[in-house]
Amino acid sequence: MPAPLKSLSWFQDAYELRIARLKEERANGVKVIGTFCLFVPDEIIFAAGADRVVLCGGKTDTIALAEQSLPRNICPLVKSSFGAVVDACCGGTLSCPHVPLVDVVVAEATCDGKKKMYELLSGYLTTYVLDLPQKPGSPGALAYFVSELRLFGKFLEELTGNTVSDEALRREIRSANETRRLLHRLFAIRQRDPPPIRGTDVLRVMQRQFFLAPADFREGVRKLCEELDPVPPEMRTGPRILISGCPMAAGNTKIADIIEQKGAVIVAEESCTGTRSFQDTVDESGDPWTALGERYLAIPCACMTPNDRRIDRIVELARRYQVDGVVYYTLQFCTGYNIERLRVQQALKREKIPLLAIESDYGESDTEQIGIRVDAFLEMIG
Amino acid sequence: MPAPLKSLSWFQDAYELRIARLKEERANGVKVIGTFCLFVPDEIIFAAGADRVVLCGGKTDTIALAEQSLPRNICPLVKSSFGAVVDACCGGTLSCPHVPLVDVVVAEATCDGKKKMYELLSGYLTTYVLDLPQKPGSPGALAYFVSELRLFGKFLEELTGNTVSDEALRREIRSANETRRLLHRLFAIRQRDPPPIRGTDVLRVMQRQFFLAPADFREGVRKLCEELDPVPPEMRTGPRILISGCPMAAGNTKIADIIEQKGAVIVAEESCTGTRSFQDTVDESGDPWTALGERYLAIPCACMTPNDRRIDRIVELARRYQVDGVVYYTLQFCTGYNIERLRVQQALKREKIPLLAIESDYGESDTEQIGIRVDAFLEMIG
Repeated sequence: MPAPLKSLSWFQDAYELRIARLKEERANGVKVIGTFCLFVPDEIIFAAGADRVVLCGGKTDTIALAEQSLPRNICPLVKSSFGAVVDACCGGTLSCPHVPLVDVVVAEATCDGKKKMYELLSGYLTTYVLDLPQKPGSPGALAYFVSELRLFGKFLEELTGNTVSDEALRREIRSANETRRLLHRLFAIRQRDPPPIRGTDVLRVMQRQFFLAPADFREGVRKLCEELDPVPPEMRTGPRILISGCPMAAGNTKIADIIEQKGAVIVAEESCTGTRSFQDTVDESGDPWTALGERYLAIPCACMTPNDRRIDRIVELARRYQVDGVVYYTLQFCTGYNIERLRVQQALKREKIPLLAIESDYGESDTEQIGIRVDAFLEMIG
Repeated sequence: MPAPLKSLSWFQDAYELRIARLKEERANGVKVIGTFCLFVPDEIIFAAGADRVVLCGGKTDTIALAEQSLPRNICPLVKSSFGAVVDACCGGTLSCPHVPLVDVVVAEATCDGKKKMYELLSGYLTTYVLDLPQKPGSPGALAYFVSELRLFGKFLEELTGNTVSDEALRREIRSANETRRLLHRLFAIRQRDPPPIRGTDVLRVMQRQFFLAPADFREGVRKLCEELDPVPPEMRTGPRILISGCPMAAGNTKIADIIEQKGAVIVAEESCTGTRSFQDTVDESGDPWTALGERYLAIPCACMTPNDRRIDRIVELARRYQVDGVVYYTLQFCTGYNIERLRVQQALKREKIPLLAIESDYGESDTEQIGIRVDAFLEMIG
């Protein structure tokens, strides 16, 4: 058993400091924006002098409350997030310390579940919706998305009283790109064979990026990379797994935990809490609005069609990280990622890379059954 | 028991003739477009000299085949439609006589299930995807949608070798408006108390509109209105029901049948197979592309956000048709319409109009249970 990495506990301390700091900021008039999705560019929020926290729910304890308003047979992330807001706004004492820190929610027109949940959310918190073309390759899509980003900027200007200047945007683009490049450095370390860090540890770090201030998050990732650089490479053995699919919001590490408890090592995550969050940088020259539009519209989420870009990336990640198998993870009832599985499976089959499909919610009732399936999969590929 | 309406059997004959005529057309080089959704404007297809049939599946017999590729826990309409295409393209002998008549499928970026299913469909039939803004009130939405419609026109021009002239578009807009006005006439007849026609009969007529040629369909609706005009108004008693929610594609009359077998009479359908298909006409003056964009983008489908327009219309329909209750119908796993139910329920509660929510697939296993719930509902509102 390797010694625990010191920099991982740094993230926990930084998280607690961050909550205190957000409270201070708000007392000083800084607006805090709650978001739920990678498609809302942080750069615009920070350029407006606002702060942001991501409110995606990864815990089960707010789901029962959400099911008083939402259907049971929809995505657990949607239910968990909604329940956390309802709880916080109704004086509850459940899981989420983030909701009370937020002035405004910025939603986005992505999947059916989130899109309609946001309408109900607007009964609890001021909610702004960013529209999103769904066919990013269409000739008019970029211009429409850029117009949506500019409107979003205007909304933030009115909210904060600050101007979103091109200069501020460029500064924030450079800052976000710096974070992205650091994450590439961290993920490159995971390409070693064997990798010097567990996937579940990286997942918990990645979940922090949506809550910490960018500079703090970068400090932590830098510390982590520095700690990992000299570590001898013989520490994490077992089949190399790529997880691909739905996001694992903070609180949700269920499938990753099972996989590594069973003796495999997760070397990369193709998800919103993995590579999708940092793979592409924003062009730093030219018009910053267009550059943001180009980068964000190209995020290969399953809400986009066609989504060949995602399929190609999964194959490329599987090769580059030399994985022995892919675990395709779908949040229960996530129609988009679930249907897209077939095309991923077909592409991986051509590469002779085995795939295990897991669809699950945040509960514990299927843990043992998933464990058995993971065991069988690891035996097959081991 | 009233005598059967003669004009209803006219529709069945017209349907059989139509299949023969489509085969002839294709032999003469006319292209036939398969569509799945109200958001694809027929006017553009007809203006290009092409013909169209709607391919939405309402039958259960192709679902098992679809589930070889698609997840089980998604919408039955998506599965049924996909299964029909796979069956027809693989030489099967299942339900759909329409698929083999089609040259190209025109899909649209609406709900998660259809959007991703179309990607798989493109492995079987040439598929063109029309993008759709999801926040129709956004300042840039109309221009983007109109640009998508114009691209679609270009696609059809290349496919057919014909020009989509403004003049042809205006002609088709007038034709489609004529159909819409006739349907308003038919539905106005249903406002009588009691109405002279069963809802299940109207539903079967409405399902034909997606397959018959417009002029033929109008001829049938005209015959039907003429037959109903003099009929004494004491024939269809029982509580007056508005069905609101998901489309009932041809083959699927399950819930409507149960409701009327239990003694109620359906007086209107707020759905794609009901009022949403004809409620708004297209402006006949000005630029036809913009007029089409305005009309189609305003269709209050649950894929749009916010969707107050739909909520308001349901309340208005409930009043105008003097309904005793609303049956809110969700296709199983249809996240959009399912979540939107809460807002509909809240609006109807303010009006003191009772609502029964039914979520169901195309199977028979829940028929008895739904019957019991409908019975209880009718007793309550009777």
